[in-house]
Amino acid sequence: MVERTEKRHTEKMKKKQAAHDKIMAGKTAEKGLLIVHTGKGKGKTTAALGMVVRAIGHGKKVGVVQFVKGAMATGEKAVFDAFPGNIEFKPMGEGFTWDTQDRARDIAVARGAWDEVKRMIEDPSYDMVLADELNIVLRYDYLPLEEVLPVLTGRAPMKHVIVTGRNAPEALVAEADLVTEMTLVKHPFREQGVKAQPGIEY
Amino acid sequence: MVERTEKRHTEKMKKKQAAHDKIMAGKTAEKGLLIVHTGKGKGKTTAALGMVVRAIGHGKKVGVVQFVKGAMATGEKAVFDAFPGNIEFKPMGEGFTWDTQDRARDIAVARGAWDEVKRMIEDPSYDMVLADELNIVLRYDYLPLEEVLPVLTGRAPMKHVIVTGRNAPEALVAEADLVTEMTLVKHPFREQGVKAQPGIEY
Repeated sequence: MVERTEKRHTEKMKKKQAAHDKIMAGKTAEKGLLIVHTGKGKGKTTAALGMVVRAIGHGKKVGVVQFVKGAMATGEKAVFDAFPGNIEFKPMGEGFTWDTQDRARDIAVARGAWDEVKRMIEDPSYDMVLADELNIVLRYDYLPLEEVLPVLTGRAPMKHVIVTGRNAPEALVAEADLVTEMTLVKHPFREQGVKAQPGIEY
Repeated sequence: MVERTEKRHTEKMKKKQAAHDKIMAGKTAEKGLLIVHTGKGKGKTTAALGMVVRAIGHGKKVGVVQFVKGAMATGEKAVFDAFPGNIEFKPMGEGFTWDTQDRARDIAVARGAWDEVKRMIEDPSYDMVLADELNIVLRYDYLPLEEVLPVLTGRAPMKHVIVTGRNAPEALVAEADLVTEMTLVKHPFREQGVKAQPGIEY
């Protein structure tokens, strides 16, 4: 019986490998991706940050613009400081919008952040650009989608752009190459009164 | 009209801020979290990697054990090499299981990786432990859940443990403090024949 089980397992795994190899053989294209992380769950910015880390580890140049944060988090800063030539980090927001309570000022802040994203997308020296929480700014109509979308889709062929934030506009999802929705299953903030902790949230 | 819209916006934002402040005031606890990233979408390992980066940026010590990878990806390696005292990285898998086709060997490999995770969880010098793709190993019954779960739940109160991989067991989800499901919306591998690229996949 044990022997039969082992044999069945080997056969199953061989089939899996053959299917996997066939799929991979058809994948030869390289292109700059438009990536969207959306959904109400955690990990949208964190996963983008993981991609940024990988890219700088490959010696690539990455631009990061944060739309709703006014300062770089301590955890990121220490790591990025070790790779000064590979990363330009711009925390352009001045707190979340519900802290500022001034729509005109929020629009001006969003505009300033967008100008940075646009500059990085148009500058061929950047291999990857992260527009962190851009979806939130679009959701509040602080920036017109019809102005933002052509810049994202008109980027150079090999440039990766990552856009994060809940409520990604449908038109952005339609244009993206890779869209992941982070779904909240359980959250210690809501259910256990646990505060933000270093290494986890920032 | 413009003025009324501005006023309405300010009032709405004030309410949001008050609600947010009230919620945050109740959040005072600190604890080591058991975090699970699951689902068929991308970003499970990448988001965990982002947390690892934040933690080492805060000067914390992190242990990473990869169950299905046999070597550290180039992108991660370059960054982690810059923080040698803060991270111990153990790629313990020898390729995905469908490449090895030997169940007995896979079980031995899984056992070796688990021994490392257990050691890091039990060693007080580690602040965070990432068991990457442990869910896959549990799914294939390479390790018994009844052996793994007590080690995870019995960890020291301030230790963070992150478990990734699709098909997280229900009993693990039930014990976890934070569970995020990554859902695939669009994927360039499947739909466009694009291969794995540096900075994105590794």
